[in-house]
Amino acid sequence: MASKRLKKQLDFIVEIDKLKKIIRQTDLIHTSRRENDAEHSWHLAVMTMILSEYANKEIDVLKVMKMVLIHDLVEIDAGDTFCYDEKGNEDKAEREEKAADRIFNILPEDQAKEIRNLWEEFEEMTTDEARFAAALDRMQPLIHNYMTEGGSWKRHSIRKEQVIKRAKPILEGSEELWDFVKNLIEDSVKKGYLKE
Amino acid sequence: MASKRLKKQLDFIVEIDKLKKIIRQTDLIHTSRRENDAEHSWHLAVMTMILSEYANKEIDVLKVMKMVLIHDLVEIDAGDTFCYDEKGNEDKAEREEKAADRIFNILPEDQAKEIRNLWEEFEEMTTDEARFAAALDRMQPLIHNYMTEGGSWKRHSIRKEQVIKRAKPILEGSEELWDFVKNLIEDSVKKGYLKE
Repeated sequence: MASKRLKKQLDFIVEIDKLKKIIRQTDLIHTSRRENDAEHSWHLAVMTMILSEYANKEIDVLKVMKMVLIHDLVEIDAGDTFCYDEKGNEDKAEREEKAADRIFNILPEDQAKEIRNLWEEFEEMTTDEARFAAALDRMQPLIHNYMTEGGSWKRHSIRKEQVIKRAKPILEGSEELWDFVKNLIEDSVKKGYLKE
Repeated sequence: MASKRLKKQLDFIVEIDKLKKIIRQTDLIHTSRRENDAEHSWHLAVMTMILSEYANKEIDVLKVMKMVLIHDLVEIDAGDTFCYDEKGNEDKAEREEKAADRIFNILPEDQAKEIRNLWEEFEEMTTDEARFAAALDRMQPLIHNYMTEGGSWKRHSIRKEQVIKRAKPILEGSEELWDFVKNLIEDSVKKGYLKE
């Protein structure tokens, strides 16, 4: 039968299936339903493969990929907090810390620690890898909102200045991707997808 | 504005959002709906992080991760073919080749080639990385079927010998994971999740 170690790893693999139930605010591009966290994390991992050449600094691609794959696991317990929800963001850190304690510790100690470190690095956004991962995480919903003619921006009457504030860290990860995003935001206002 | 190269990469990133619409036979564990290919690919990528220590040979983890992230993209055009559907599997290769030609070539030439090579390596299952990726791809639905008390096995009256034939390549990727899977199959028969 499975060793104690493998048993813990399999328990974690079963537990994280719940990420597929965590619904985000983002609309899918080609069908009318909202995206879940597992789909979003997959999309970011492929974006890492395709767009890593635009990182401001040379990055460890495997590390970025691991970060984006696990960055939302805490939302299994803490739920998805809409980035423009000021009230929800007040106690977000506390809820997510508690979730990290429970979920990551299903794993054997060494792996729990590795994933905890990756998640904290992502959240702190101070290393080159974390900055690039954050850039992709903030850029992906913008592409979806643009392609769905406003999507969650329209649903929540979001204004341009809110989106710029949220997107600004993209510049720290990639100047070229930030240039693209700036234009996308301007064009979204012109097309009426986003309020001035 | 975005360079020609970035434009192609973004077109690809928008196109592959369709993977989230490709429904598999596998049931999710914690909720009653079927899994889609993007969710499945994300799950395999995290499994690569967690289980790579069980590979029979030392593997390039980043390469395996890239393989599992892109292995089902061809199903955007070719659809998901149920692994126990003999008729559907007759023309699967042809349909998927055509899909690969269209989808991968949205990317700039160098990246189209890289992803094509990764996909072909995965399909051929002759390198250590491809064998391990295939092991995870075949193991994940077994875990889901076990956790959902038979899931798609029951729905399609699948027999033990069919599952063993399908799962057998796991041995080539990981002897330890194959040991676990063998026990899971035996236990599934005992519990009535799977026909003898």
